[in-house]
Amino acid sequence: MEISQRALNMPSSPIRKLAKYADDAKRNGVHVYHLNIGQPDIKTPQCALDALKNVDREILEYSPSDGYLTLRTKMVKYYAEYGIYLSPDEIIITTGGSEAVLFAFLACLSPGDEVIVTDPFYANYMAFAISVGAVIKSVKTRIQDGFRLPGVEAFEEQITEKTKAILICNPNNPTGYLYTRKEMLQLRDIVKKHNLYLFSDEVYREFIYTGMPYISAFHLDGIEDNVVLFDSVSKRYSECGIRIGCLCTKNKKVHDAVMKFCQARLSPPLIGQIVASASIDVQKDYLQGVYEEYLDRRNFLIDGLNKIPGVYSPIPMGAFYTVASLPVDDAEKFCIWCLSDFRYQGATVMLAPASGFYTEPGEGRQEVRIAYVLCKEDLAKALDILAKALETYPGRIEP
Amino acid sequence: MEISQRALNMPSSPIRKLAKYADDAKRNGVHVYHLNIGQPDIKTPQCALDALKNVDREILEYSPSDGYLTLRTKMVKYYAEYGIYLSPDEIIITTGGSEAVLFAFLACLSPGDEVIVTDPFYANYMAFAISVGAVIKSVKTRIQDGFRLPGVEAFEEQITEKTKAILICNPNNPTGYLYTRKEMLQLRDIVKKHNLYLFSDEVYREFIYTGMPYISAFHLDGIEDNVVLFDSVSKRYSECGIRIGCLCTKNKKVHDAVMKFCQARLSPPLIGQIVASASIDVQKDYLQGVYEEYLDRRNFLIDGLNKIPGVYSPIPMGAFYTVASLPVDDAEKFCIWCLSDFRYQGATVMLAPASGFYTEPGEGRQEVRIAYVLCKEDLAKALDILAKALETYPGRIEP
Repeated sequence: MEISQRALNMPSSPIRKLAKYADDAKRNGVHVYHLNIGQPDIKTPQCALDALKNVDREILEYSPSDGYLTLRTKMVKYYAEYGIYLSPDEIIITTGGSEAVLFAFLACLSPGDEVIVTDPFYANYMAFAISVGAVIKSVKTRIQDGFRLPGVEAFEEQITEKTKAILICNPNNPTGYLYTRKEMLQLRDIVKKHNLYLFSDEVYREFIYTGMPYISAFHLDGIEDNVVLFDSVSKRYSECGIRIGCLCTKNKKVHDAVMKFCQARLSPPLIGQIVASASIDVQKDYLQGVYEEYLDRRNFLIDGLNKIPGVYSPIPMGAFYTVASLPVDDAEKFCIWCLSDFRYQGATVMLAPASGFYTEPGEGRQEVRIAYVLCKEDLAKALDILAKALETYPGRIEP
Repeated sequence: MEISQRALNMPSSPIRKLAKYADDAKRNGVHVYHLNIGQPDIKTPQCALDALKNVDREILEYSPSDGYLTLRTKMVKYYAEYGIYLSPDEIIITTGGSEAVLFAFLACLSPGDEVIVTDPFYANYMAFAISVGAVIKSVKTRIQDGFRLPGVEAFEEQITEKTKAILICNPNNPTGYLYTRKEMLQLRDIVKKHNLYLFSDEVYREFIYTGMPYISAFHLDGIEDNVVLFDSVSKRYSECGIRIGCLCTKNKKVHDAVMKFCQARLSPPLIGQIVASASIDVQKDYLQGVYEEYLDRRNFLIDGLNKIPGVYSPIPMGAFYTVASLPVDDAEKFCIWCLSDFRYQGATVMLAPASGFYTEPGEGRQEVRIAYVLCKEDLAKALDILAKALETYPGRIEP
C-alpha cells in the first residue's frame, strides 16, 4: 500500500512545522502571540449568534446541494451593494471558500492544465491544484515594489497552450495588496485575449483601507463568462467555523459542472447557512466597527514594524495581513527560534514564514506573513517581543 | 474555456434527472412520496437540538483541521462499544462521510489506480473516484442472490497491478445487504494477499435487523494497517445537515496524508461538531426507538412490495434501503412516468432508478432503490400508489 503521488507532492504547511514548537512553548507556560493565522478575535455578530439559539427545526436535514434559495437570494442583494449583479442561480453555496476553489478547479481544470497565480499567494491554492493535478505557474510580485502586478509581458511569458486560468486574490492574502483599476483592466485583456478563466478570490472585500475603489472581477466588461468568483462569510462576520462560502459564475456550463461535484457531497452545512443568512442582516455599524478596528490595527502594526531596525513592511491596502522583510538569515529558522528559544517577559510570537507562500524554494526567505487579527494591546506586546527577538537572534544579518 | 474532462465524465445522477419532474408535479399540487433519498423523517435527538441553543461562544472560529479532541475522544468510546478500538489520533473529523471518502481517495489513489467495489454501489463513490482520476472496477452482486458477495475468483478476476483498494459499504447502500463473517474473512484474505487498502463505509451500523453479527473491517485480524473506515453521524442521529463524519485509520502514513488535505480546507464545521458531540450522549432509548421504527418500516415495506404482482425485493438485513425489481421495461422511464403522468388520489411516488448504482449501462434496468425513511402511514400510501402505477404503466412487462 502506497500513499498517492499527489499526497507525496502536497506541501507540508510551514505553519504546521511550527505548530509543535508552539505547543511545546505553551505547555511550558509561555504565552504565544499568534500573528500567524487569519483567525480574527472579533466577536461574531449577535444576530448570528441569536440565529443559532433560535433554530426551531426538529430535523437537522440535508439542504439543497447549491444551498438554500433564501440564502442565495440574500447574497444577491449583498453583491448588488458592491455593484455585482447576480441572480440566485448564479450562486452556489459551498463549505467555506475552500470548497469553492476546489470545485472550480475540479470543474474547469484537467490534469496538466496550468493556472497562473501571483507569487506570493495563499498557500492552499497549491494544495487544491495538486489535488486536481493542475500546475501552478507564477508571476512574481516583489516586496520592494509593494507587491504590485508586473506588466502584461510577465503574464505572456507564463502563458502556454496548457494555461487555462489566472487566479487572483483581491484584496490579497498574504500581501494585503489591492489591484488597481488599471491592473484589473490589464488582467481582463489577458483573460480575453487568451480565453482563460479568471478565478477571483474576493473574500476580503470589506477590508480595504485606502480611498482606492474595489474592482471586482465581475466589474470587468466583456469577460462575464470567464469569471468564477470565490467568496466566504468567514472573515467579514468573524465566523470562520461555520464553513460557509460560495462560488459565483455566470457561465452556465461551469455552474452545471460545479453542481455535479456539489451533488456528490450532498449539501453544504445546514446550520452554517442559517447563521450566514442572519449575518447578512447585521447592522451596518457592526461592519463599520470591525472595519475601523482593522484599520487602526493595520496602522499601528505597520508603523510599529517599520520602526524596528532592519524591518520593512509595505502598507497593505486591504485584507488583514502584511508580508514584511526581517533582518534574518532565514525567516523559518527565526520563527522556530522564537518559539523554541526566545522568551520576553514570559511570552513569544508565532509568525508565518513567507517561504510557504512562494512557489519556488528559497524565495521569501527573509520574509514573514503577519496577520493583524489581534487587538492593539496584544499587537503592541507582540511588536515589543519581535523587536527584542530580532536584537538577540543569532542569525541576524544587516539588511 | 472548456470544462474539465473529469467534469464531463461525472455522471449526472439519475435522481437529478427526475428532480425537475418532481418539482413540476409539486408545482401542480401533486403530493410526492419521496422513496428516493436517504433523508430520514426521524427527529434529531433533543440533546443535540439543545446543544445548538446552548452554544455560548462569542466567536464562531475555526476548529482544528482534524476536529475537536473532545469529539474524537467521544468517538473512541462510541467505537469501543462496537469492539472497535481506536485512539483519538486515529480519527479525523470530516465534513460529512462524503469528505472522508474523497480525502481517502485523494490520499491513497493516484490517477489510473483501480478500486474494486461491489456492484450495485452508492453512486457518489463513482463521483469521488472520477474526481481523483481513479478507476472503479466492479464485482457483481445480483438481486436473485440477495446481493451476497460472489466468491474469491470474482475478485481475483478484477485485480490487476493497478488495483489499490477494495471499497465496501456495510450494511450496504443501496441493497441493505450485510456482509457475513465468512464474506468479511474472504475480503480480509484478498486484501492481505494483494496488499490492498480496505475502504469500509460503515455509516449504517446502527441499522442491522437480523441476529447476524456486525463485522467491522476493524474486527479483522492482520489487516489493521490496510483499513480505512468511513463514518458519519448523519443517519444514526438523523442529522444529515450538520455535515459531520469521520475517517478512521491506524495507518500513520495514511493518516498524515489525509491530514494534508484536511489542512488545506482548514476545518470541519464547528457547530456540527458541537451537535455531533451532544448526540453521542443521547439516551439508549432514542437509538432503540429509531431502530424499532426502521425495523417496523422495513418489514412493512418489504412485505408490501412482495405482495405487488411482479415485484420482488430481497429482505434487506441492514441500512434503510432495498433494491427491488419491477415488472417494467425500463425503471428510469417508469420513475419519470410516475412523476410526469401518473397520479393516484392526487399523489405519486418518487423512486431512484437502480441503473445509477451500477457501473455498466443497462444493468439494473428493471430495478429501483427504495428508501424506507418515511413513516409507515406514508409508506402504506406509497405502496398503494406504486401498485396502481404498475397496473397502468404502459411499459409494463410480465417478469
